[in-house]
This record gives sequence, C-alpha cells and structure tokens, in this order.
Amino acid sequence: MEKNSSNMIHLTADSPSKPETVCIFGTGDFGRSLGQKMLQCGYSTVFGSRKSQTSSLIPKGIEVLSHAEAAKKSNIIIVAIQREHYNFLSELTEVLHGKVLVDVSNNLKINQYPESNAEYLAQLVPGAKVVKAFNTVSAWALQSGTLDASRQVFLCGDDSKAKEMVMGIVRTLGLTPLDQGSLLAAKEIENYPLQLFPMWKFPIYLSLGLSAFLFFYCLIREVIYNYVYENKNVSFFIVISIPNRICPVVALILLALVYLPGVIAAIIQLHRGTKYSRFPDWLDKWMLCRKQLGLVALAYAFLHVLYTLVIPIRYYVRWKLNSYVISQIKNNKTDQFIHSTGWHSDSYLALGILGFFLFILLGITSLPSVSNNVNWREFRFVQSKLGYLTLILCTAHTLGYGGKRFLSPSSYRWYLPEAYVLSLIVPCIVLIIKFVIIFPCLDRPLTRIRQGWERNPQEFKNSNDNDSNSAV
Amino acid sequence: MEKNSSNMIHLTADSPSKPETVCIFGTGDFGRSLGQKMLQCGYSTVFGSRKSQTSSLIPKGIEVLSHAEAAKKSNIIIVAIQREHYNFLSELTEVLHGKVLVDVSNNLKINQYPESNAEYLAQLVPGAKVVKAFNTVSAWALQSGTLDASRQVFLCGDDSKAKEMVMGIVRTLGLTPLDQGSLLAAKEIENYPLQLFPMWKFPIYLSLGLSAFLFFYCLIREVIYNYVYENKNVSFFIVISIPNRICPVVALILLALVYLPGVIAAIIQLHRGTKYSRFPDWLDKWMLCRKQLGLVALAYAFLHVLYTLVIPIRYYVRWKLNSYVISQIKNNKTDQFIHSTGWHSDSYLALGILGFFLFILLGITSLPSVSNNVNWREFRFVQSKLGYLTLILCTAHTLGYGGKRFLSPSSYRWYLPEAYVLSLIVPCIVLIIKFVIIFPCLDRPLTRIRQGWERNPQEFKNSNDNDSNSAV
Amino acid sequence: MEKNSSNMIHLTADSPSKPETVCIFGTGDFGRSLGQKMLQCGYSTVFGSRKSQTSSLIPKGIEVLSHAEAAKKSNIIIVAIQREHYNFLSELTEVLHGKVLVDVSNNLKINQYPESNAEYLAQLVPGAKVVKAFNTVSAWALQSGTLDASRQVFLCGDDSKAKEMVMGIVRTLGLTPLDQGSLLAAKEIENYPLQLFPMWKFPIYLSLGLSAFLFFYCLIREVIYNYVYENKNVSFFIVISIPNRICPVVALILLALVYLPGVIAAIIQLHRGTKYSRFPDWLDKWMLCRKQLGLVALAYAFLHVLYTLVIPIRYYVRWKLNSYVISQIKNNKTDQFIHSTGWHSDSYLALGILGFFLFILLGITSLPSVSNNVNWREFRFVQSKLGYLTLILCTAHTLGYGGKRFLSPSSYRWYLPEAYVLSLIVPCIVLIIKFVIIFPCLDRPLTRIRQGWERNPQEFKNSNDNDSNSAV
Repeated sequence: MEKNSSNMIHLTADSPSKPETVCIFGTGDFGRSLGQKMLQCGYSTVFGSRKSQTSSLIPKGIEVLSHAEAAKKSNIIIVAIQREHYNFLSELTEVLHGKVLVDVSNNLKINQYPESNAEYLAQLVPGAKVVKAFNTVSAWALQSGTLDASRQVFLCGDDSKAKEMVMGIVRTLGLTPLDQGSLLAAKEIENYPLQLFPMWKFPIYLSLGLSAFLFFYCLIREVIYNYVYENKNVSFFIVISIPNRICPVVALILLALVYLPGVIAAIIQLHRGTKYSRFPDWLDKWMLCRKQLGLVALAYAFLHVLYTLVIPIRYYVRWKLNSYVISQIKNNKTDQFIHSTGWHSDSYLALGILGFFLFILLGITSLPSVSNNVNWREFRFVQSKLGYLTLILCTAHTLGYGGKRFLSPSSYRWYLPEAYVLSLIVPCIVLIIKFVIIFPCLDRPLTRIRQGWERNPQEFKNSNDNDSNSAV
Repeated sequence: MEKNSSNMIHLTADSPSKPETVCIFGTGDFGRSLGQKMLQCGYSTVFGSRKSQTSSLIPKGIEVLSHAEAAKKSNIIIVAIQREHYNFLSELTEVLHGKVLVDVSNNLKINQYPESNAEYLAQLVPGAKVVKAFNTVSAWALQSGTLDASRQVFLCGDDSKAKEMVMGIVRTLGLTPLDQGSLLAAKEIENYPLQLFPMWKFPIYLSLGLSAFLFFYCLIREVIYNYVYENKNVSFFIVISIPNRICPVVALILLALVYLPGVIAAIIQLHRGTKYSRFPDWLDKWMLCRKQLGLVALAYAFLHVLYTLVIPIRYYVRWKLNSYVISQIKNNKTDQFIHSTGWHSDSYLALGILGFFLFILLGITSLPSVSNNVNWREFRFVQSKLGYLTLILCTAHTLGYGGKRFLSPSSYRWYLPEAYVLSLIVPCIVLIIKFVIIFPCLDRPLTRIRQGWERNPQEFKNSNDNDSNSAV
Repeated sequence: MEKNSSNMIHLTADSPSKPETVCIFGTGDFGRSLGQKMLQCGYSTVFGSRKSQTSSLIPKGIEVLSHAEAAKKSNIIIVAIQREHYNFLSELTEVLHGKVLVDVSNNLKINQYPESNAEYLAQLVPGAKVVKAFNTVSAWALQSGTLDASRQVFLCGDDSKAKEMVMGIVRTLGLTPLDQGSLLAAKEIENYPLQLFPMWKFPIYLSLGLSAFLFFYCLIREVIYNYVYENKNVSFFIVISIPNRICPVVALILLALVYLPGVIAAIIQLHRGTKYSRFPDWLDKWMLCRKQLGLVALAYAFLHVLYTLVIPIRYYVRWKLNSYVISQIKNNKTDQFIHSTGWHSDSYLALGILGFFLFILLGITSLPSVSNNVNWREFRFVQSKLGYLTLILCTAHTLGYGGKRFLSPSSYRWYLPEAYVLSLIVPCIVLIIKFVIIFPCLDRPLTRIRQGWERNPQEFKNSNDNDSNSAV
C-alpha cells in the first residue's frame, strides 16, 4: 500500500525524481545537447530514433532505441524533431497516451504556420499532455555550459501537472522556468526567439527619422548656406559639428516624448473623470515603450557628451582659437573678460553636466537587476521625480545654450531657426502642461481619480476596494 | 483508496493545480487586475463582492458572487479590500475556516496601525490560514504586463502549506516569491513599499551636508576673499569651479568612510581578542551602508570628471589662456618648458584617471546581477583589494594635485587651507591604520581572531567548528 | 489511513513543512549564523555539539544537545564542522541512517583532498543521504542579512528527495538553489569559492603581457630615441602619452581576438565539412572566454578615452600650443586652414566616438541581467552584428589616426613602426577572412553545415532532427 502511494507521488509533478528516465525523440544537434546536459544533471536518458544504431556523436551512456521502445521507458518525451517530421508521431498515439510530450521546436519565420507547432503536436497525439518548452535555449549554450544569453525557459501547456514536471527538469538544468499559461500561448513562445527587439523598433525608427531630418536641416543651414552665401567650404562639419547638433536635439525630444504620454493620460483621465476607461491604443503602446525611448535618448545624450568633450582636440577648433589669438595680437587688441559671458557659459555647461548625470542615474535604475531591487515607490520616485528634474535641467541647458541668440536675426538663415530651437518645442509643452497639472485645483481631483474615484460612477460603487497599489 | 491519496496531494501546497478556483474578495482596481492576470495564467477565478451584479469593468469570464458564495468555491481567498473594510469578514468565519486568506493590503503610512493588516485579519478570522503577499505588486504593472519595477513578491505566514500554495500562484504569474518567515514579518512587508531608499538616507544626507559645508567654505575662500582683498568679482565660480572643488573632496571623504569602519572593527577585535562580541550599534549600521556610501562617492567622482573635462571649453578658461599668451607676447617673454611641472601635471592626472577607472569597476561589481555571479572570494578581492587600491590612487591624486602648494602661505586665505587639504584627513587616517594593521605582528592575531580564535575563551572552545566561511 | 498518507507527504521533498526541526552539528561561527537565520525563517532548530552546555553566543531559542540526541530530533542534519573533525560521525551511523546530511564545508586550497568533503562524509556515514550545499554562503552575510555577494547556493547529491528538501530550505532563507547534479559535482562546488576569476585569467594575463611589451616598445621609440638622437628628455611621456598609446593598441588587438576564434571555427567547419567534430581544445577555451576578452578590451578603450580627453588639460600640451602660437607670431606667419586636415582630424575622432559608443553598448548587453532579458537571436545580433561594426569602426579609427604617416620614413625610428601599426595586424586579418567568408560561395555551405548538414555523413543521416536552435 505504502509503496503504491509512494509511486503515485513519483508520478506527480512536484517530485522531479531524477532517477526516472527522460526520453528524447531525435538525435539531432539539439537532442544530443539536451541529452548530454540531462545526463550530467543526473537524469537517466534514452534516445528514440528512426535508426536505432548508436553513433560516435551520441553522448556515452545514452541508449538509442526505436521511437516506440524509447517512449515506453519514460513518462516524459522531449520531441526534438522538426515540425515537418511530426507525422510519424500519430502512429505512436497508443504508446504516447497519457505521457508528457515536450515540444521544443522553433520555426524559421514569425507565424510560419496557422497553428503553433505545439498545438499541431497536440492534435496529432490527442492522448498526450503537450508542453511547449526549451525553444529559447540554444544547442550551443547547452553544450558549452555558457548560458550567456537568456536562462529563461518559457513554458505553456494545458495540463498543470505535466507543466510542473517539465518545470522541475528546467530548474534542475540550472535554467529558470517561466509559466506562460495554456497551450494557446505556444504561438507567442514560438515567435519569441524570432523576435528582434520588438519594443525597440518604434524608438529606434523614430530617432533615426529625426536624425535624418535634422541632418539635412543642419546641412542646409550650415554647410550649403555657408557655401552659397559666404563661399566657404565647411563640408567637414558633417563629421562632428552637425552630429553634435543632431544628438542633443534628438536626445531632448525623445526625453520629452517619454513624459508626454503621462501628461496626455492625465488630461484624458481628468476629462473623462475616471481611470476605468481604456486609453486609446496608440497611447497604451506609447506608454509601454517609454523605457526604450528614454534609453535611446540617453544613448544620444552620451554621444553628445563625447562629441562635445573632443571639441578642444579638433584641428579646426585649435586652428580657429590660434587664428583668433594671432588676429588679436596683430590688431593690437585685447579682449576684456565679460563677466556675464562667464556666468552664461559656465551655467549652461553646469546644467548640461547635472542633466547628463541624472540621466545616467535614470539609465542605471532601468537595468533589470537594479529595478528588481527597488520597490514600486522608489521606482516611481526615480523615474518620475528624477526624470522630470532631468527634463527640466536638459531643457534649461538647451535654453542656456541658445541664450539671447534666438532673438538675433542673423541666426535665422533662410528663415530657418537653429536646430536647438526645434528641440525646445516638445519639452516646453510637456513642462507647461505638467506645471499646470500640479496645481492643487487639478492635482486633487486627478489623485482621487487615480485612487479609483469616479466623477460619474456607473455600475457600482468601488467603496470596499483596495486601491492603494494603483498608479499610472 | 488510491484516488483518495491523489486527491490529498491535490490539496497540498505543492501542486498549483491550476484548474482549481481562486477567489478574490473586492472588485476594486487591484482585485480586477489580479483577477485578469490569474485568468490569463489559466486559473479559474471568481470575485466575491457586496453587490453581486457584474460590471463592464469586471474581466470577462469571471463571475461575481456574494462573499460567502465565492468563498465556498475556492480554497484560496485573496482579500483585495482595504483594512478599514475588513470587519465584515468576521461574519464569514465559518465559511473561511481552514481556507487560505491572502492579505494584499498596503497602508498609507509606515507603522500606521499597531499591528500589521495581516495579523489583524488573522485575529478577525481565527480559523483561516493568513498569508501576506502581493502587496509590493502594483495594479498597473499587472494590467500592463510590464513589471519594470520589482518582480519580487514578499510572503509570510504561519502555515507553511498555505504559504507554498500562494508561492505556487506567484510563480505562475511570472513573479518571484520570497519567503520572509512567520506572520510576524507582515509588518515589515507592509512597510516595505512605503520605504524610500532607507539604506541611502545616511549616505545622501551626509554627502549633502558635506557639500553644503564645502560650498560655503570655498565661497568664502575664493569668491568673497577675492572680492574683499582683490576687488575681483568671480561670482561665476559658484557654477563650475566651486562644484569642481566640492565633488572630489566629498568623493574622497566618502570613499575613505567606506573603509574606515573596517579598520575600526579590526581595532575593536584586536582589543577585545574575540570576534564573538557584537560591535557597537553605530558601527554595525555604518558597515551595512558601505555599499551605498561607495556609490554616492562614485557619483561625486563622476561629476568631478565631467566638471574637469569641460574645463577647456569654458569661456573663462579660454579667455585666461588667450590673455596669457597675449601678455607673454607683449612682454616679449617665452615660457621655458619646466620638466618637473610636466611630470607633476601628468602624474596627478594619470593617478586620477586610474583611480576613477578602478572606482567605476567597483561600481559595476556592486550591480546586483554582477555581484550575484561572483563568489565570495572574488567579491572580497574586488571590494577590498581593488577598493584599497582605488583609495590609494585617489588619495595620491589629491596629494599630487596639491603638490607643494600646501607649504606656501599664499594658499592660506584667512588662515583657511584649500579644500583639498580637508579631504586628505580621513583617507590618510584610514590608510595609516590599515598600513599598521597589515604588519605581521598585528595581522596574524587578527586573522586568527577572524577564524574564531579567542584570546580569553569563556564558555567553551570552538574547536570543531567550521569557520572557513567567516569574513568581515 | 488518511493521517498516514498525509505524513508521507510530510516526508517527501516538496513540502518544506517548516515546523519540522532542523539539526545543526557544530556551534561554530557558521553553524550559529545558520541557526539564527533558520530560526528567523520559522524553522525549529537544534544544535548538536560535543559539550551540550549553552553559551551566550548560541542564539536564543536554540537548544544545544549532544550529537546523537540532536540528530534524533530532525531528518535534516547540517554538518557545520571542519572535515578534520568528521571522524566521530562514523560512530553515529545508526542514528544518522536514512537522514539527510548536509555538508557545508570548504577547504583552504583547491583540490586539497583526493575526494571531496561531501564524498568523504558519504563514505563515513553510508546510510545517510549526503547533500552538498551552502558552502558558497558566508557566515557574515547570513548574520548581517546583506547578501551582497552571491545569493546562489550550489547543491549536489545522489538522492533527489534529499536534495529537494535542502532546496526548500535554501529558498526559504531567501537564497537561490542551483542543482549541480550528483555528488560527483561536490568537488567542483567545493573548489568554486576558492576560485579567483578563473575565466578572466587568460584575458588579463594576455592584456598585461601585451601592455608590458608595448610599454617597452614605446619607451624605446619615443623616450630613449628622443634622448639619444635629439637629446630631449621627455621621460614624463611614460605617465600619460605612452599609456595612451598602449591602451588603444591593446584594446583593438583584444577586440579582434574576440572575433578571431569565430572565423577560425568557420574555416575549420568549412574544411571538415561538418560541425559534429570537436574543435581543438585551445579553440574551445578561447571561445569560452570571448566575453571576458571583450570586456578587458572595453576597459582599455575606456582608459584610452579618458587619457585622450585630458589632453587639453595637460601642462605639456598647453605649453606646446602656446609656444606654437608665439613662434608663429614671432615669425610673422599665419597657418592657413587646411581643409583636408580638418576632414581627416574630425573623421578619425568621429569614428573613434562611434566605435566607443557601440563598444559600451556591447558591454552593457553583456551584463547578466541584460543578457537574461534578450532572446538568443537578439543576443547574437548585438554580439555579432554590432560587434563586427564596432571592430570595423575601431579599425577605421586607427587607420584614420595613422593616415598617411605609415608611408613616411620619419615615423620609423630604429626601423620600428609606430605602435598603432602593430595593432592593425590582427583586426585586419579578422576582417579580411570575415569578408571572404560572407561571400555566398562560402557562406551558403557554412550555413548548411551549421544547420547540421555534413559533406561526408558517416554514421547516420540527421534528417529528422531539430537544428533550428544551433548556433556558433
């Protein structure tokens, strides 16, 4: 009796019970790597293959049997076979009945097939409990033991016990299982390794678009204008001088775009008088890529800092400074130190330094390992309070850089203002709206709305609800 | 019989057995977000609410029942209600008997109530197994799927099975459960999300205090002195020149304060002849915030580097250099290159660069994800050996910067030495004590004490103990 | 009956069932720290010691019993005793039969004993289930609660249930268990905390060797040559000028060495016509330390950037620039702006900035927490595509820096070319081979080989294998 019961526990999900045998269908690259790794971690492993002879490539200690024989030896069968070859599995339906089938396959393209490989497998072998797993792990990483890339193994499946069994194996291999729910999630899991920074696409395309526009803008204003009107060839400006105009402008615009959706959301919530109606889709998407926008902005700011710091090393700058000194001497003139210029020059540099410093801090706190170690209140403090301070400092830095120049007509060439003027539009809008919103007459109702209050409560009152965790 | 036993396992903590129903009391923001997420992760979910009508806000597929009916459907009841509304739960004592009650509530202030919300809940419903969890997770993060902030869910509770059940749910939602022990820990868990960088407070206040003191010190020495005695207005110094005196001084003092508690601890241990008596409380606290002290020091060092690198771009500096050249020409003088000045200028710059480089390395290894991947010996090597090397390099950089100046009376204005002189006091003390301690006659007994040896062993000898892991 | 069955579950691995008692043998530093921590986490704890009297050092609430008595109270015995004192345990064989013995010991040297401590313990107490664990955790970290260093606890053992029990304890203490397989892994686990950056040794020694060679090379070319032929003492060059030649050269060579093994592997695979034969050992090792090589290269590049940016602050540079201006005026000469020099100077600076920027990006993505959050395709995109772009930019930067100088005989002193010429050899080789390999006539067979195709398939065809995860 007791033995029986103990066997039962063996079969339940929670006891990895390693001495149990794991069967792998397919002796390909991934199958062999996985088999070797399992063997190292103490699992007894067996291969199922069309040809049952062993090969020098098969890890020592693993038997190669026919598919049916191998499947009989184990409750978990890992199907390391490409989808095109799944057909033969339908013949094994009987042997595989009630067993856990782990689909590890990947496709070559996103949404290659109408249904996911795992769902297809579940249709082919109706009696088996199909679990999708391991598709994000590379054969090479398993072999070499260096799991530099992700240690995360996404799982899904309709049978929770089967899923737990596979999660036990994943943990034993030193990887981190992440349950994604039912087998419906298989499609997403199969698409995942084919994705290339999906969240980064919008911020990167946007920044490249802005950069291209600004490049031609500055090219016209500074290089072509000079060539046409002053007959000066300053084409080498496109190497450092123009990039150093593009970078700060793009950085500031992107940084402002990080905070723009927040104020738009506040306006929408104030207007609707509730937080329970969904935002428009574009606003939702925008809010979800704020982190990426901010990091791209930081990259541009970093380039701006580097471009600025090499200024005194540039041949052109040295030549200009030397020429200036020489011309002063020749004309027997001496510049007096202008106190206000000293203040002005130092101020905007200092604002830029402090802004960049806070920006770096924001960047560091968005590292996954750092943001995992702060609580929600701390995260919001950094990303919201420090974030706005960064935006204010960087906007002030740009305003200071411009100084009184934007008033002088000479800075408008072909009626085009300097690039920095363009960069100020979005940040100023954001800061003005934010400034208006923090007035008590608007801040108080907004806070109440965000705590769940509704101006026109409709279906029922949310009186006894816990809203202390809510935040936008 | 067998079926029975298998059922039992179903009820135990370890099998998340998702098809099982989870009940959520409260249809507020957090309740709904959690319900939706649970539904996505494959749990069957039911709401308990005062008014059982459904609303458009309730996620589709979740029934809203009365509290009692909903509670009957599930073994786990998540109480997403504010503490003030807990009273009615005492009426449900019978229905809730033996069930797992998950308290997710937060307060508005630290230590708002004498007992934690979870303990209060346990008193109200004596028969239930109360588990504190989920209070660090925000509704918005659950809704949006972006868990940028912490994925860590702190749990505590007196019943280990109940706790395991909740941990299973936490894991399935893609979060990381962290068991904090018995329900006594609930207070701390409830305070956690209200904290704002508690470990950082002392280092930040200290650095701000030092900065303010140094600001006025330099203001007096450089701006006011110049104005009074030389009638020169250099007020713009407060923008870059004075911050660039404050930053290195604060950075060096804080860096030395990172290593000071270590040498004080060594002296105390040598004096007492044992490591088994507790350090004074202030020393313990100081040692626990050394990492934060070091990182604040790094921030100041980073600002110092930026302030230094913009020197050649500053209008004041350019003007001064130009004036110097012009005055040389006018006076028909040519400066000879002074070899020793070349050595001196390059040396202290190089020391500063190397010191900053090592400092950055120290900062990177204190990132959680990096320090998790090094063993204890490597961590100590970096933080102790490289740390002292950094301190030595930075102290030498400051000494080199000062050069012979501290001997010249002209550098003492109003009897005040330059700011860099102040910054050298603490690091020199630390380095001298450390230098004394590493002499064999002191190092050997200290090592033995740290391995568990006692000069006057009192209660019993620690002969057969494993001390190989000990370290200070 | 039901009670029986429930007891059984109690004994299985999966229910940590904390009220159960944990026994610790040894009241030393580590034993006490562990006991205290266990108590805090809700475990009932008991000490086993030779002398059963309590001491003021023993945490309150923990009883000290004789070894045999203490062992009887618990199913898990943590042996916090040094290996030399294990002998007495053989007398307790009977009491310890069937119990879980956790070996936490460390040695003082790598491979100090022929067999691991855990295996030795298993021999001494044949009936017990020995699990190796906790040896990477420090007593101090347990006491202070700051687990700054690793939270990872490596485990191994032959009994999976015993291992699961210990893993439950590890998780409850807030640490992360990592199962390393059977007790054979104990040796490696015991060596782990004694290791000091084993993967970093080769890159660091290589970079130090290269630095030393280049230092003497530059010393001869620039300092000694100047002294001998031009009788100029420029010995202060060894502080900044020469390091700023060494750093970029070492950085570029190391960066190229990151990509060299990849192209060598490609050549080997193309030559052999299969990917299933192992690479030579040196190539395998080389490939495994590419990340470390790259990060050391980044460190050198960072130093190069700092050394370069301080150039305008150096006394020597300022003096040289001033002298140049003064000499121009005295000779009544004015330098004309040379357009091509403007282009050239700005171009190589811009290339360097962009190269450094991408290099920093590569460094950030190799942070564990970042690389854990990207999928394999994204990781390869960054490390391979962006990596090659970085190499190309840095090589172009160096070529641009050299300009036409390598043609002029005056740059060859004592027939020695400038240092930058040496740095170009390896990167150019890598880039040329890579350029050849990406031609379709070579790229296509290589891709097929990497997907599992073999030119001369030997043992069996890998037709139905899943190779979509393979990568080099």
